Amino acid sequence: MDAYAALVARFRRRGRVEDALGILYWDRATLMPSGSAEGRADQIAELSLIAREILIAPETAELLDCAEADRNRLESWQARNLELMRREYLLATAVPTDLVEALQRAGAASEMCWRETRPANDFARQQPHLEKVFALVRQAAAARGEALGLAPYDAQLELFEPGLREATVAPVFEDLAVWLPDMIDDILSRQAEAPEPAPPRGPFPLAGQKALGQRVMAALGFRFAQGRLDESVHPFTGGVQDDVRLTTRYAPEGFAEALMGIVHETGHALYEQGLPVEWRGQPVGRSGGMALHESQSLICEMQLSRGPAFLRWLSPLLAETFGPQAAFDPDNLNRLVTRVARGLIRVDADEATYPLHIVLRHRLEKALLSGDLAVGDLPGAWNDGMAELVGIRPPDDRDGCLQDIHWMDGAVGYFPTYTLGALAAAQLMAALRRDVADLDERVAGGDFAAFTGWLREKVHRRGLSATTEEVLADATGAPLSAEAFRTHLAARYLG
Amino acid sequence: MDAYAALVARFRRRGRVEDALGILYWDRATLMPSGSAEGRADQIAELSLIAREILIAPETAELLDCAEADRNRLESWQARNLELMRREYLLATAVPTDLVEALQRAGAASEMCWRETRPANDFARQQPHLEKVFALVRQAAAARGEALGLAPYDAQLELFEPGLREATVAPVFEDLAVWLPDMIDDILSRQAEAPEPAPPRGPFPLAGQKALGQRVMAALGFRFAQGRLDESVHPFTGGVQDDVRLTTRYAPEGFAEALMGIVHETGHALYEQGLPVEWRGQPVGRSGGMALHESQSLICEMQLSRGPAFLRWLSPLLAETFGPQAAFDPDNLNRLVTRVARGLIRVDADEATYPLHIVLRHRLEKALLSGDLAVGDLPGAWNDGMAELVGIRPPDDRDGCLQDIHWMDGAVGYFPTYTLGALAAAQLMAALRRDVADLDERVAGGDFAAFTGWLREKVHRRGLSATTEEVLADATGAPLSAEAFRTHLAARYLG
Repeated sequence: MDAYAALVARFRRRGRVEDALGILYWDRATLMPSGSAEGRADQIAELSLIAREILIAPETAELLDCAEADRNRLESWQARNLELMRREYLLATAVPTDLVEALQRAGAASEMCWRETRPANDFARQQPHLEKVFALVRQAAAARGEALGLAPYDAQLELFEPGLREATVAPVFEDLAVWLPDMIDDILSRQAEAPEPAPPRGPFPLAGQKALGQRVMAALGFRFAQGRLDESVHPFTGGVQDDVRLTTRYAPEGFAEALMGIVHETGHALYEQGLPVEWRGQPVGRSGGMALHESQSLICEMQLSRGPAFLRWLSPLLAETFGPQAAFDPDNLNRLVTRVARGLIRVDADEATYPLHIVLRHRLEKALLSGDLAVGDLPGAWNDGMAELVGIRPPDDRDGCLQDIHWMDGAVGYFPTYTLGALAAAQLMAALRRDVADLDERVAGGDFAAFTGWLREKVHRRGLSATTEEVLADATGAPLSAEAFRTHLAARYLG
Repeated sequence: MDAYAALVARFRRRGRVEDALGILYWDRATLMPSGSAEGRADQIAELSLIAREILIAPETAELLDCAEADRNRLESWQARNLELMRREYLLATAVPTDLVEALQRAGAASEMCWRETRPANDFARQQPHLEKVFALVRQAAAARGEALGLAPYDAQLELFEPGLREATVAPVFEDLAVWLPDMIDDILSRQAEAPEPAPPRGPFPLAGQKALGQRVMAALGFRFAQGRLDESVHPFTGGVQDDVRLTTRYAPEGFAEALMGIVHETGHALYEQGLPVEWRGQPVGRSGGMALHESQSLICEMQLSRGPAFLRWLSPLLAETFGPQAAFDPDNLNRLVTRVARGLIRVDADEATYPLHIVLRHRLEKALLSGDLAVGDLPGAWNDGMAELVGIRPPDDRDGCLQDIHWMDGAVGYFPTYTLGALAAAQLMAALRRDVADLDERVAGGDFAAFTGWLREKVHRRGLSATTEEVLADATGAPLSAEAFRTHLAARYLG
């Protein structure tokens, strides 16, 4: 067997262990009884270690050297796969094991503490944990950057989005910071002039909500022969590519949050179900980074399901499921799901204000990583930034800089992917509309084949054979920018 | 680290991989969508291979040699653990890999074929598969026997019950064959004189059945913080020791089958939940063989839940759950759940006739393994044996020698454990009654603490630190025999 073929076998093996982990994680979040958390943690740690050992074994390095020396023999997707293998090997070996473990311990302790300090609004108690986490992330980013030839923040971005660089992110986010605050002023003025939407009247029985959710998933092209819909406290998409497991959370008072949540997770799920089967288990066969993944959930949720054509299709389904009521009128639904409001909390933000929450976090995490901002100065910088960007000043740290888990746990470089995903979703939707001229009529008639088919062809089936920026450029004819997003907001809220 | 400690770490690691497999198997049987069967098979095969590699690595053999040379340093349970480690190593390495694979392939092909030949009543088509399977099992048993110093059939028994030998099984089964057929004649005569039980009138809503099942499980001592009750087509107990997953199958027409099934599986589950936590992942910390495991399910189902004291407790719960009806009278319930009938099908047999189905299979599989019986002569031998032992001659092979999956798949030596489990259950219950004088009053009052506590102490917490025969002798003061079972049948059906 030649070196490349041996690597393929090695990564396939690792992929199967990781698939097993995907099911164990899903089970832990949905079904596992509380008293087996420790045992499950042991199982997950053991399988993770096995997957890591397969990757970082000395044989892997030897095979990579051999295969790279002989790379002219490879087809282009194989050459890309080999590059990604090397990338994974470098990412896994660049950081010394004791530093990896120190970071895991510090992140776990910091997160544990945060579960108390956030409700207690006690930044002072969180501060030393956060200082330690950022100090260790700084070391890890430097080590990873050295191995990959990247600046430290780029090395963090690379963790979450292969190929993404700050040189791409910075100008896009600066652009947003310039025009979006003013646009939000305009949107809010316009919204104030329009009639208030009629609120839907519950209760909305859970069985009906679930059946409707499954109906929408199936219409969007979710294959239930290779996936499931279940419930969990924090909705997510997990499982594996041929067994994609969505979860949601129902509340009888409202249907919209769970339903839009299902559409969001279905976007993630369609991406996983659409990955090329023939590359399964190989780095080239994986989904792209978090930004591209988020673009797939947001094109379904924000672009599609909060748009008028979808709501025209949904309106009679709601009446059929829950009985007719005035709130199900498509125009009313439209007003209900496109409300904009300045708020303190990122996870509750609407699509218009959300990017400004991210622009703030992006600025701050770069400064925290470089050391330009001391952790002790974070609350003040946060509150000033919120006032400047979102136009609202947090009264405390609980709803300010303590609100998110990401930094507590060492996830630095993750936040930008949320907004890059939103921008990419808008850009992809604009291109999709150009390519599928009668999209709105199809959607209003419940025909999503062209919508999902376009995404499968332009995004899903490419796996990681191209970077996010290449996928976007190929699909839309333009580099990643905030332009389509701006046009989308203007059309939806100011049109 | 000394050699024994290194082995402990190695087996702990393997145990965690096997625990992960336990969850993957459970998920496959309960939740997995049909379209991911192939991917799941890959994951299971990979983890099984990893677990096997940890066991059969050359380092394991070296460590075993070192630790055995130094075994005087070990405490007795550690010495037993070391013995069991050697046993597992020998069992895993005794059979050449190509023979293991040939047997797996032949078993899979034979089982696949059987799924058609059984409904088609086509023994002729099954015969060549069965011949191949028995030929390969014969080779594997010889290889295993050579490594362990055992005769071939003993090597098969050892697979399913550590330490069990044909020298123990044969006299017990010969004894059964002598007195049980006559006793069944007596039971049937006696039964014919008694009034027919009133049948319960359904439907029995599934939610009520499930709630009642959970109530009974909790009363028996099942810890829901470390386990679950779910549904599957074929009820089983799976998962792992701190996350024991029972499944059952409900039908609205009747409650008894599902409820007794839940009690049966709860017996298995209590055993797993009662294993010594401090030995987790080590061979000494595992449950005993299939016979001892079956004794724990049968002492709950047959000895306890089909007995009058339990039914007195159950009767008002049934009325509370499903509304009152005459069939819930304790005496009527008693007659309902202790019906005896000669039948063709083992899995439908009552506790009195069941052992004769097993005695037949035990005779035949020994003869098939040794070659004394040709596979082509199996149908005739089966039908003659059924007529002799059970007193009923199968009209065809579908309900004769084609009814069970075990041999089709190469599981030779498994059948005896069912009946040894039933005998052990009777023997344990007799000892339990001696030790807990007021057992019936406690059970009738819904207090199962003494019942389950006795099993935990005498059986569960011993793990594999003793053989099944040692556990029984220590708990009951007598070697395994059919005596207590005979007394039990006489008391229940002829008393």
